[in-house]
Amino acid sequence: MSQKVTACVLVIGNEILSGRTQDANIHFLGGELTALGIQLAEVRVIPDDEGEIIEALNHCRAKYDYVFTTGGIGATHDDITAACVSKAFGLAFELHPEANRILLDHYGDKANTARMRMAIMPRGAELIDNPISKAPGFKVENVYVFAGVPSIARAMFDSVRQSLKGGAPLVVQTVSTIGLSEGMIGEDLRVLQDQHSGVDIGSYPFLKMGGFGVNLVVRGEDKQAVKLACADLKTLIENAGGTPIEGETEGEQF
Amino acid sequence: MSQKVTACVLVIGNEILSGRTQDANIHFLGGELTALGIQLAEVRVIPDDEGEIIEALNHCRAKYDYVFTTGGIGATHDDITAACVSKAFGLAFELHPEANRILLDHYGDKANTARMRMAIMPRGAELIDNPISKAPGFKVENVYVFAGVPSIARAMFDSVRQSLKGGAPLVVQTVSTIGLSEGMIGEDLRVLQDQHSGVDIGSYPFLKMGGFGVNLVVRGEDKQAVKLACADLKTLIENAGGTPIEGETEGEQF
Repeated sequence: MSQKVTACVLVIGNEILSGRTQDANIHFLGGELTALGIQLAEVRVIPDDEGEIIEALNHCRAKYDYVFTTGGIGATHDDITAACVSKAFGLAFELHPEANRILLDHYGDKANTARMRMAIMPRGAELIDNPISKAPGFKVENVYVFAGVPSIARAMFDSVRQSLKGGAPLVVQTVSTIGLSEGMIGEDLRVLQDQHSGVDIGSYPFLKMGGFGVNLVVRGEDKQAVKLACADLKTLIENAGGTPIEGETEGEQF
Repeated sequence: MSQKVTACVLVIGNEILSGRTQDANIHFLGGELTALGIQLAEVRVIPDDEGEIIEALNHCRAKYDYVFTTGGIGATHDDITAACVSKAFGLAFELHPEANRILLDHYGDKANTARMRMAIMPRGAELIDNPISKAPGFKVENVYVFAGVPSIARAMFDSVRQSLKGGAPLVVQTVSTIGLSEGMIGEDLRVLQDQHSGVDIGSYPFLKMGGFGVNLVVRGEDKQAVKLACADLKTLIENAGGTPIEGETEGEQF
């Protein structure tokens, strides 16, 4: 078994909690991290509140290999993430020379106090390139600080992707069927999962043309173990009177 | 000042963390709770892991007035939320007579062990009606257990909405402008926020026809205080050379 590498995402922003804004970063980061062999183990959405942010930062950076934050690094008074990271690490919160140069280059004679505030960071922070709106993200130890705007968060993730070290990517294989609901195969599935304890089997029901179907997703570190579980899943489906399908079937949520 | 009523949402499911499934419940619940005068103060997305679920349940039910969970109450082996709620509360995990009757009525001679497992709940749980697929959610003290499938989660929320007690709903008013970026008004905005400490001003930039704009959202318990802050925001925008717009302007994310 390879060593598991874990991550946590902290989504920082009242606008997500109030229902004003639909988060788009969790889904993106979950997929990207999984592909890198990094297990996204927790997400927290927290308000623009210093105490809550610092507590979450310190809890999660101790518990997980990587922490990614989104939100709260803009030019206005409600952007307090950078200051909170400084406090969480006990680092001076000061003008970052390189960030200062990037912002001066970008804004020219439109530089002002609010914009240049985005160059104030925890001492020693490593910058994360922002090809979209220039104001950089940054990294302190295992904490990566991204913007909340989805296109910028994605660009910042792209900037650091190469430097992230995952474990062995999980092998993922799906067997699906149309016409059987998960309730019809639930007990057999439980027995099958017990027999294949080296893999995780997830059961995801869907609707298709008015009938039920189910995607059975097998995840594991060992390719052979995943393959064996999938073979047994096909037999299980056949025994229940269904037709197994290799791979995912797209259906409607119900 | 009215008393603040708070809530937390626990999204339970490996499929959200792995990026397989995009969550649709956080945004819905955030908006609905806000409308009821209940402040969604935190969301956690956690895996199908007994230890993690129990820890999050016990932490959050002590900290917040309401806890809503989504996910993990289906008919398969990976649905462990109900058992975890029982353990978190130290309650017996047993057949719920009313849930049993509902499921027997619904499934008739198609009832089987997997399906009837959905009637096993913490002792004394109050059922939450599920008009869509019948298998009920439930409530124990301040913890409300919903399905993860969005249409069912919404229906279950509708079933309990009347029983939820919020504080005074926040007064929310937005002033927006096109052609000014938040960086151009950030310092004035900071001063204005300090002058109006009874309200929270959020600044949300957008793109419109290739240019920047910003929505300034004022939230507070006192209608008059919100109104005064909005009046000053309009002056701020005018002083910066912009045109204030009453209400939200739809723009593109960038």
